Amino acid sequence: MSIETLTAAVRNIPDFPIEGIQFKDITTLFQSAEHLKELSDILYERYKDKGITKVVGIESRGFFMGPATAIKLGAGFVPIRKPGKLPYKIIEEKYTKEYGEDCIQIHEDALTENDVVLIHDDLLATGGTMLAAYNLVKKLHVSKIYINFLIELEDLKARELFPKEVELDTILKFSV
Amino acid sequence: MSIETLTAAVRNIPDFPIEGIQFKDITTLFQSAEHLKELSDILYERYKDKGITKVVGIESRGFFMGPATAIKLGAGFVPIRKPGKLPYKIIEEKYTKEYGEDCIQIHEDALTENDVVLIHDDLLATGGTMLAAYNLVKKLHVSKIYINFLIELEDLKARELFPKEVELDTILKFSV
Repeated sequence: MSIETLTAAVRNIPDFPIEGIQFKDITTLFQSAEHLKELSDILYERYKDKGITKVVGIESRGFFMGPATAIKLGAGFVPIRKPGKLPYKIIEEKYTKEYGEDCIQIHEDALTENDVVLIHDDLLATGGTMLAAYNLVKKLHVSKIYINFLIELEDLKARELFPKEVELDTILKFSV
Repeated sequence: MSIETLTAAVRNIPDFPIEGIQFKDITTLFQSAEHLKELSDILYERYKDKGITKVVGIESRGFFMGPATAIKLGAGFVPIRKPGKLPYKIIEEKYTKEYGEDCIQIHEDALTENDVVLIHDDLLATGGTMLAAYNLVKKLHVSKIYINFLIELEDLKARELFPKEVELDTILKFSV
């Protein structure tokens, strides 16, 4: 199976959630056993030699492949969540979105400076949430950070937001 | 590693989200590579001979082990989500919670009558959300349904809500 086959399995939804947006629906990819296995194998192959100790997934669609990838890599899994969801002591990062301010949180004891971290989410569009997640992981003194998305909307050029030393990798690439 | 070791890895948070509730924090279990692998192996062992074709996970913590289990079983993964999140045609199920009404949705083309479905979530407490998820999967004409939770609060006796013919299984058991 090829990247082209996986790309074709993503369903295009016009005008969702608002008019003018072409939403990339990954549920069609995940509901196919063959596509899901292929996606899992690709993620494993890309990170198996990086010494990853923790995979961090961002709520909610970053939870789909986060733990699955952690298990294959022999790593632990850590969620980054919206406010009010994590029950223990948290640190948080606020960031600006198109229509106002947003905030994400992580447990303060979830990572240590010795961790090698892969932060994963489903979609790189404007990049705001991932940049906040990257800053949050840095606050926990992690020095080696990889970033991965299932899908990149290349025309938005959001990867330019991230420091050059960060290895940012995406699997399926679309124009907007 | 034993079930007792996994049980001890769940962190007890007093008075979260409201006073009087002892919240079971599974993030401590997931952030340990060894515990996460053991959990994944247990789920695989319990369902490997059931012919599961789709694992259905309930938003959000049902997304942690849903896709990971689907991959190991050679099945596809289907999310059940809160309103407004699934972009394609949906069917929905409303249900009553302690303080008002709630609703969950599934894509109408996510399952067929030939699927053998494992519905998975993290916590069996009052059981209301899972019962709604079960009804939702039945609406898509699925006849063979298994139900799994990582954690069961046994004193609440929520498993009595489900029809006798449903195999309902839980991994870690707690009194409230």
